[in-house]
Amino acid sequence: MGSENEIYRIDSERLRATLDASSEIGRFETGLKRLALTDEDKEMRDLFVSWGREAGFDVKVDAVGNIFIRREGIDPSLPPVMMGSHLDTTIRGGRYDGILGVLSGLEVLRSLEDQGIQTQRSIEVVDWSDEEGARFNTSMIGSFAFTGKLGIEEIYAKTDAAGKRFVDELERIGYRGDAPVGGRPVDSCIELHIEQGPELDEEGLDIGLVTGSYSVRGFRLAFEGETSHVGPTPMDRRRNALAAAGYMIAAVNDIGLKHAPEGGKTTCARIDVWPNLYGIVPSKAELSIDYRHPEEEKVEVMRRELEEALDYATDRARVTAKTIATWRFGDNDFDAEMVDEMRKLAPRITSRTKEMLSQAGHDAYTLAGIAPTVMIFTPCKGGITHNTAEDIDFDRTIPGVELLLNLVVSRANRSV
Amino acid sequence: MGSENEIYRIDSERLRATLDASSEIGRFETGLKRLALTDEDKEMRDLFVSWGREAGFDVKVDAVGNIFIRREGIDPSLPPVMMGSHLDTTIRGGRYDGILGVLSGLEVLRSLEDQGIQTQRSIEVVDWSDEEGARFNTSMIGSFAFTGKLGIEEIYAKTDAAGKRFVDELERIGYRGDAPVGGRPVDSCIELHIEQGPELDEEGLDIGLVTGSYSVRGFRLAFEGETSHVGPTPMDRRRNALAAAGYMIAAVNDIGLKHAPEGGKTTCARIDVWPNLYGIVPSKAELSIDYRHPEEEKVEVMRRELEEALDYATDRARVTAKTIATWRFGDNDFDAEMVDEMRKLAPRITSRTKEMLSQAGHDAYTLAGIAPTVMIFTPCKGGITHNTAEDIDFDRTIPGVELLLNLVVSRANRSV
Repeated sequence: MGSENEIYRIDSERLRATLDASSEIGRFETGLKRLALTDEDKEMRDLFVSWGREAGFDVKVDAVGNIFIRREGIDPSLPPVMMGSHLDTTIRGGRYDGILGVLSGLEVLRSLEDQGIQTQRSIEVVDWSDEEGARFNTSMIGSFAFTGKLGIEEIYAKTDAAGKRFVDELERIGYRGDAPVGGRPVDSCIELHIEQGPELDEEGLDIGLVTGSYSVRGFRLAFEGETSHVGPTPMDRRRNALAAAGYMIAAVNDIGLKHAPEGGKTTCARIDVWPNLYGIVPSKAELSIDYRHPEEEKVEVMRRELEEALDYATDRARVTAKTIATWRFGDNDFDAEMVDEMRKLAPRITSRTKEMLSQAGHDAYTLAGIAPTVMIFTPCKGGITHNTAEDIDFDRTIPGVELLLNLVVSRANRSV
Repeated sequence: MGSENEIYRIDSERLRATLDASSEIGRFETGLKRLALTDEDKEMRDLFVSWGREAGFDVKVDAVGNIFIRREGIDPSLPPVMMGSHLDTTIRGGRYDGILGVLSGLEVLRSLEDQGIQTQRSIEVVDWSDEEGARFNTSMIGSFAFTGKLGIEEIYAKTDAAGKRFVDELERIGYRGDAPVGGRPVDSCIELHIEQGPELDEEGLDIGLVTGSYSVRGFRLAFEGETSHVGPTPMDRRRNALAAAGYMIAAVNDIGLKHAPEGGKTTCARIDVWPNLYGIVPSKAELSIDYRHPEEEKVEVMRRELEEALDYATDRARVTAKTIATWRFGDNDFDAEMVDEMRKLAPRITSRTKEMLSQAGHDAYTLAGIAPTVMIFTPCKGGITHNTAEDIDFDRTIPGVELLLNLVVSRANRSV
């Protein structure tokens, strides 16, 4: 299938203009600050919706704010092919993380329309609501809801640092839509994303063919000690929750450095301490720990090392520790058939490709649980991301977007 | 002087009632939450002022909210003897830390009045404004202002976590007084305080005669790294500010444990991290470090060990560190003559005394810079403090308060 057909092209200048327009909304330093359900997110969503309507596509918004722009296929009863990523950013984010995937998807629909290309199946581009989790402390909210991994009531009740509820903010920006959340068949999903690592850029390549993902695990610990005075309380009487967290942070980083030669990574990204005041030995600390490795069995080795480190930390600081949340992703393998199709199409667009594993979390991982899914990576400069300095080489991005277009057409037209 | 005179007694039931009334204002679990310049602080101040006025004493409030209740001496032109501590608490504080010193001072004035005891010098009891620093992040604000260690404008501009300014909150609760801040001679200062450590309680003693203080140093570090994605960013490219803080927290605790047998102590009480969000390697962390030791030369040894640890932490996490604040206290020795007078008086009240060093920070340290100063410790159960479980044995507190009364009279009547 596919490889005997012609290779379709996109309108790269239109894509550039679309990305430039997005880069003005929530501008922050050289990047973006466009947190989910803020005024900036609303402005971007409004623009995205207007682009869809102007091109004559159907636009639907579901009850958690996921936006679906759909170009109808010859047989509308067939499940659609989806391209999706996210338009929100972290607190000091870049202009392309997530955004490139959504706006490339829009460009794919527009190119199909321009060129009068009919497809058997309908094709949708999706802006998944609040992927970053930078405001309501849960990432991939939209795709989790769509795939039933998170309940709508649970999502609605989430609050930001100012105590504002997800549902109220969704309502406020006008994106509590009336489409049902999920519950409909999906043919397949393709997410194009910047690599967020340095490999493609440094090796002078244009496309990363994502064959699978790192195995990612995480957990959040609550250390519980006791407040006391930093002056007179003898060291051997203290139950210092921050000291325990400190031993753990150090060990987490050491374990990551140890496994780094094989691609292992560990991070403590977030800590919250009580009462966090001068003069008082802290009684409570919550710490989030993320660890990942290309090989699943090595993730297990890391897990055991982290457990040993935790025993040491709690003993030495005389506190207790409880795991209050765990997460894992990257265990759904991407679809072999779609990976094969991508392998066939890519060389007809560029010779500068390589196969690689995805290391970050993506909506695609979630969707892989309900439909055949695959990802395409494009280069990002120096691998810098989640940073306002995030940047791309536009010309080296086009081949990936054209692979997306051709893969979507191939998939939408494959025989039932 | 002193020891040939009679020993005066207080009205212990009145003191108990006074403490009980205080324990209702800002009640939180079994302790108090009475942060500086809050409604609870205002309610307590109002009660304290009304007690002073009802007893016929002069009440003055200065421009940073320090409250002085004064019983006039035979020669009002002589500098007064001061008893002072604080009525504010930490965020989950106890009922006695600071409070006992102020309300014991009030009881001393009331007892002198009841018993018609005239003194040569005037005697004042002071509520020093915002000793704990739990709201505006600077401790001992009132005594620092009185002794000229902090400027009034600098204090006024300080803000709490909600962005409220000290001066506005002071005005709001009605305690921006018209008395000038400091600038007047003080004969001497005596601060009675709960020990905040376990020694008196465990050894069955009633009074700690405080002969000096631990040498206390502290500093606040700002680690500066770079945000990146916790997934794809290789370990050796990261500049993780929280990882550096973690190595430092662990080392700080290890150094404290190493010096613990000789009384050394170290604490990281506060950490602030940016952006502190899931998925992002933190670019910035600020960490406060406190270290103290009974011997000043050992503090210097600890300082060198902390410096080595800091080099390791910044190297390993590839970040920079800057010291953004430093503090030291406990270097002003208490007054030898007053310590001697206390040594003479104490055995006439109880045999259960011992000499000890103060380990916490107190307003008395600040006042020791401008006038002869001494402290009296009373037992607190299990040494628990800065904790809502803080408690005292009331009967074992009375001897300390009576030592305060007799020391004040002796000092106020000594020959010029």
